[in-house]
Amino acid sequence: MNYCSHCGSAVKQGIPSGDNRLRDICPNCGAIHYQNPKIVTGCVAYWEDKILLCRRAIEPRYGLWTVPAGFMENGETTYQGAARETLEEANARVKVETLYMTVNLPHINQVYMLFRAQLLDQDFSPGAESLATHLCDQQQIPWDELAFPTVSLTLQHYFQDQKSGQFTQRMADIVRNADKPEGYQINYLMT
Amino acid sequence: MNYCSHCGSAVKQGIPSGDNRLRDICPNCGAIHYQNPKIVTGCVAYWEDKILLCRRAIEPRYGLWTVPAGFMENGETTYQGAARETLEEANARVKVETLYMTVNLPHINQVYMLFRAQLLDQDFSPGAESLATHLCDQQQIPWDELAFPTVSLTLQHYFQDQKSGQFTQRMADIVRNADKPEGYQINYLMT
Repeated sequence: MNYCSHCGSAVKQGIPSGDNRLRDICPNCGAIHYQNPKIVTGCVAYWEDKILLCRRAIEPRYGLWTVPAGFMENGETTYQGAARETLEEANARVKVETLYMTVNLPHINQVYMLFRAQLLDQDFSPGAESLATHLCDQQQIPWDELAFPTVSLTLQHYFQDQKSGQFTQRMADIVRNADKPEGYQINYLMT
Repeated sequence: MNYCSHCGSAVKQGIPSGDNRLRDICPNCGAIHYQNPKIVTGCVAYWEDKILLCRRAIEPRYGLWTVPAGFMENGETTYQGAARETLEEANARVKVETLYMTVNLPHINQVYMLFRAQLLDQDFSPGAESLATHLCDQQQIPWDELAFPTVSLTLQHYFQDQKSGQFTQRMADIVRNADKPEGYQINYLMT
């Protein structure tokens, strides 16, 4: 941030009174501009033993596969956002059932909240941000062509849980490994 | 938002290509300024059958009681933020155990994530944003002086769950009732 979004003056970094972190502060109007993590919300949308995947038509990870998910918008609930993303990316209608997987990504200031959701019918198709949509059972998942580690981790748990018949709500962190830029580490709060 | 935080030009509202919502767009540098919900993270911190409450030393709701909670910061996980807020507001150290209650507040673009957490000792005291800190059992909770409906709802469930010995993870919405500005409606995704 370079300029105050309220008055247009150049901002300066400083620690506000009563705070303990550097913030962007406007020396003209006094506005403090906080930066906070964003929620990415989406669905693990199932039909019998299959999961709905979308092949990405946008960067990052063009051409790779993901569950329908995107940034939560103002004015909606987390699960309304998950259903909206599923409609936008896969033209699919769902009944959202439970929060299934929450993943903290502190290195990119995101929190994924992925819901287990029942597809209401098999009438789905690629939305504007998807090249293709497909229902995949465990064998059909393109495990080597998944777009994000969050998706891979969630689907691994999902198919394990499907075998046991017990879908367990989990929270994990995916933290980039500073030593290996391509590597990352997974921690669990709830397993 | 009035001015572009990148280049300082006056922004205009418009719907970007491929989008379906009004955004603040900079006609000079092309930056699109998205606004997204914020996460409020905190702890239902317990010691035996008691919960740690803080009396607020700040607005809004100065003088009323809450569980320690605040805006999640960049670079942390949701539960690290919950532990940090508990340390800042009550000088209390906790072991965070599970996500307990998630509450969507779409009318103010917030999502509360409250974690069940074990107090590591009874050495707590008011932080800068608290007037007092207190361990309360169900009878001692100042039910008529709680700061937010989110806190009231969470503590009601907590003490019910404590009786049954089964702490159930829930997601609810608290939606302001348009007809009665002081009223609100509670919906559950998971009960």
